[in-house]
Amino acid sequence: MRLILLSGGAGKRLWPLSNNNRPKQFLPVLQNGDLMESMLQRVWRQLEETGLAHNAIFSSSGNQKELILSQIATDVAIVEEPERRDTFPAIALAAAHLYSQGVDKNEVITVMPVDGYADHSFIEHIPRLAMVLEETGADIALIGVKPNQPSEKYGYIVPGNSFASDTPYHEVEYFTEKPDLMKAAQLIEKGALWNCGVFAFHLGYMIEILRKKGLPYHYQQLRELYGKMPKSSFDIEVVEKANKRAVITYNGTWKDLGTWDTLTEEMASNVIGKGHLCKNSIDSHIINELDLPVSVWKVPNIIVVSGPDGILVTDRNEATGIKHMVQQVEIPPRYDERLWGKQTVLMHKIEPEGIETLTKRVIISAGRSISYQEHHLRKEVWTIVSGSGEICLNGEVSSIKAGDTIIVEVGMKHAIRAVATDLELIEVQVGKEIGEMDTIRYTHDWDLAPSTH
Amino acid sequence: MRLILLSGGAGKRLWPLSNNNRPKQFLPVLQNGDLMESMLQRVWRQLEETGLAHNAIFSSSGNQKELILSQIATDVAIVEEPERRDTFPAIALAAAHLYSQGVDKNEVITVMPVDGYADHSFIEHIPRLAMVLEETGADIALIGVKPNQPSEKYGYIVPGNSFASDTPYHEVEYFTEKPDLMKAAQLIEKGALWNCGVFAFHLGYMIEILRKKGLPYHYQQLRELYGKMPKSSFDIEVVEKANKRAVITYNGTWKDLGTWDTLTEEMASNVIGKGHLCKNSIDSHIINELDLPVSVWKVPNIIVVSGPDGILVTDRNEATGIKHMVQQVEIPPRYDERLWGKQTVLMHKIEPEGIETLTKRVIISAGRSISYQEHHLRKEVWTIVSGSGEICLNGEVSSIKAGDTIIVEVGMKHAIRAVATDLELIEVQVGKEIGEMDTIRYTHDWDLAPSTH
Repeated sequence: MRLILLSGGAGKRLWPLSNNNRPKQFLPVLQNGDLMESMLQRVWRQLEETGLAHNAIFSSSGNQKELILSQIATDVAIVEEPERRDTFPAIALAAAHLYSQGVDKNEVITVMPVDGYADHSFIEHIPRLAMVLEETGADIALIGVKPNQPSEKYGYIVPGNSFASDTPYHEVEYFTEKPDLMKAAQLIEKGALWNCGVFAFHLGYMIEILRKKGLPYHYQQLRELYGKMPKSSFDIEVVEKANKRAVITYNGTWKDLGTWDTLTEEMASNVIGKGHLCKNSIDSHIINELDLPVSVWKVPNIIVVSGPDGILVTDRNEATGIKHMVQQVEIPPRYDERLWGKQTVLMHKIEPEGIETLTKRVIISAGRSISYQEHHLRKEVWTIVSGSGEICLNGEVSSIKAGDTIIVEVGMKHAIRAVATDLELIEVQVGKEIGEMDTIRYTHDWDLAPSTH
Repeated sequence: MRLILLSGGAGKRLWPLSNNNRPKQFLPVLQNGDLMESMLQRVWRQLEETGLAHNAIFSSSGNQKELILSQIATDVAIVEEPERRDTFPAIALAAAHLYSQGVDKNEVITVMPVDGYADHSFIEHIPRLAMVLEETGADIALIGVKPNQPSEKYGYIVPGNSFASDTPYHEVEYFTEKPDLMKAAQLIEKGALWNCGVFAFHLGYMIEILRKKGLPYHYQQLRELYGKMPKSSFDIEVVEKANKRAVITYNGTWKDLGTWDTLTEEMASNVIGKGHLCKNSIDSHIINELDLPVSVWKVPNIIVVSGPDGILVTDRNEATGIKHMVQQVEIPPRYDERLWGKQTVLMHKIEPEGIETLTKRVIISAGRSISYQEHHLRKEVWTIVSGSGEICLNGEVSSIKAGDTIIVEVGMKHAIRAVATDLELIEVQVGKEIGEMDTIRYTHDWDLAPSTH
C-alpha cells in the first residue's frame, strides 16, 4: 500500500496563527508529553509507529514543501501542485507521480488528509482498506467514523447493505454534504457515518479515470497541463461517480481540528505561551505566540489567540465564524517557517517617498544555511544574538559569533549558516521594495536544499 | 492664586498601557477633535484656556519630569519628590518651594490632581475657592461634586450648615471614605458630595502646620529630610484636622478615569488603534498600541487593551479589579516616553551565560537629542529608519540620514540628535547587563535639558 498525504489549505479559521505561509496543520498546538507538536507531526508520528510512513508521499499546495521537511525532518517525497486547484487534480498528480515511478497498477493507494485528529487505532484501520478492496471488489474503499453526536460540520456517508453477512463492510448508498442538526440526527438514526476523507483505490483505477477524461497519466505531461485540470474535488470527480464503494466503520476519536473551539478541546492546558487566566475565566483559553503576557480577567468561555499576525478574542461557540472576518483584518504574514529555520517580523515600516525598513528576528537551525544571494535595492544589517556560524560575503568565508554585526551592502553576495547550534540574529533590511523580487540566487557549497529567504 | 498640580501614581489599574514609566495621566486615550490627548494634556489645556496655567507648578513623583515636559511642551516648574511617599509630604514640599521662592503667606494655594476628568466649567470653579476662603474665614476650601449616582469608588464630603443664608458655601461636617452602595445612597440623601481632591488654603496655613510639626518650611531643608516625613495623605494630615472647612458644590461632569471601564466611557470611538469589533461585540472596546490588528468576534461587554507590556482582556464591569493581578503578570516596562522622544522594546533576550540583546524602536523628536554618553559593557547598532540628524562619536560630528547604519562600539562616546524632523531608528544593544548602570554621561552642546537614555 502507498499513502498520499494531503496537505493543503490556507486555514483562515485559525487566524491569527495560521496564514498563507503556515496553514493549520503546521501549528504547534497539540501536546505530546512535554513537547508541543503540530497536526502534521502528530499524524506523521502515528504513521511511523504503525510502519506506514515509509510508504507515504505528500501532495501539497502553496509553498509548503519547506514547512513539511522542516517539521518532520525527513527525505519524504512531496508532489507540489504547480498552482492551487482542488483535491481531484492534486491526487491525480500524486497518483501519476507514483505510476511514473513504476508503482504497479494493482497497488492500493490510500489518500488521507493530514489535518485530522484521531486515535492511534484510526491509523490501524488504514491497512484494512486493501483487504476491503480485495474482498468486495469495490472501486473505492472508505473509512466512515461513527458519530458521537449530530454535527453540522461534517459530510455523511449513508451505508447500504452489507457485502456479505460475515463481513463488517457495507456498500455506500449515498453521500450527503454538511446537513443541519436535525437532518444530521436523522442520518445518524439511519446508521450514517462521518466522511473523514480517507479513500483507498487501486492505482490503475485512477489511471483509467485520467485516460477516460483524455488527460495524460504520465507525471510530467500531467504537470504541464495542470492549469487546465478541473477545479473539482476528488469526492465529486471520483468517489461519487464510482460504481461500487465499500465503507468500514471506525468507532473512536476522530475530529477535524479546523476551528479554535475544536482545537482547544484537545489542548492539555488552557494556556499555551505566556498567559494568565484569572478568576472566573472558566472555559477560556489563551494561545499566545508573542513575547508579551496575555491576561484574561473574569471573562468565561472565550478564546484569545495572539501571534505575529494579530490578536483574536472570540466567543468559544462562535469561533467557526471567524473566517468571515479574516479577510478584513489580515496583514502580510509576519511569521515564516523555512527549511533553514524561521523568522518573525518585529517591525515593518514604509516611509512615503522614503525608504522601507523591515526588522526581523531570524533563527537559522543548526547545520542549515540561507542560500547565497544578493539584493540590488536593499542592504541588510545583521546582529548576532546567539550561537555561532559562518558567513560568505562576495566569496570570502569568515566565522561569526554572538555579538558580531555584519553589514551586507547593496549588491554584495551573501550567505550565512549555523554550525553546531541554532544561530539567532536581528536583521534590519533597509531599502526600497523589499521582497523576493529583489533577490538573485547563486549556488553555494552550503546549499542543502532549495531554500529561499 | 497658585496651583499645585499633583501628578503621581503608578496606575496599575490601567495595565498594560500604564506602568511605572507611564502612569495613567500620561496615556493618550482621550479624543480632542482629531487628535488624542492624555488626561494631563486635557487638564493643562483647560487650565490654559482659563488663564490658570501660568500660575501652576507640578508636584510629581517617580521619574515623571521628562514625561510632563514632553507632553505639555513648556517650561513649567516641577517639584519632584526625592522618593515616593504620599500626598502630605508631596504637597508640603511644593508649598515650601513656593514659600522659598518668595510667594506671600497670604497667597491662596489650590491643590488639584491631574488625573480627574471634568468639564471646562469645573476649572472655572477653582478661582472661586479664593473668594470662599476670604468670605468664610475657613482654613480649607474644597470643591464637592454633586453625585449623579451612588458610587463605591469615591470618598464623600458630608456638608453641614451654610455659612450664611446668602452664600452657597457649606461647612464640612465630616468626610467618609469609599462606602458601599447602600451607604452611598444614604449619604447622597443627606446631600453628600464626592471628594475630588481639590483643596485651597493660604500658603501661611501650610507653613504653620509644618512649623507646628517641627518640620522645616524652607525648601532645601525640607527636601533633605524628606525621607523622614510621614507616609500620610494630605486628607488625613491636613484636611480632616482643620478647624473650619468650607465646600462649594460643582454640579457637572467629573470622573476619576482610573479604571478601564470609566476611561472607555469617555472614548469617542470604541476602537483606538488597529482593531475590529465584529458582529454582536456590543459595548466592547479595543485600545491597541501595538502594530498588529486586534479582532473581537462576538464577545460583548469586554475591554481589550494591548501594548508593548502585554495584552488584557477584561469584563467591562470587573475592570476595577485588575489591579489585584497586575503584579503577577507585569514585565519590565517596554515603552518609555522621554523629553527627547520615545522608545519601544521590540525584543529583549538574555542568553544563559551568554550575551544580552535588546532591540528597540527609538524616535527622537525634532530638535531634541540623547545625551552624550558611553557604555563599557555593550555596543549599539543604529539603523536610521526615517528623518535626518547628526551624531557625535568620540567628539566627531557627522550627518546621518535614513538608511545609514552606525555601530557604536564599547567605550565609544556617542550622542545623536534629530534636526528638522523626528528621527526614527532601530537600535540593537548587544552586551552584558544592559541598563542604566552601564551609562556614563558627559555634557554636550546639544543637551537641551537633563535627558537620559
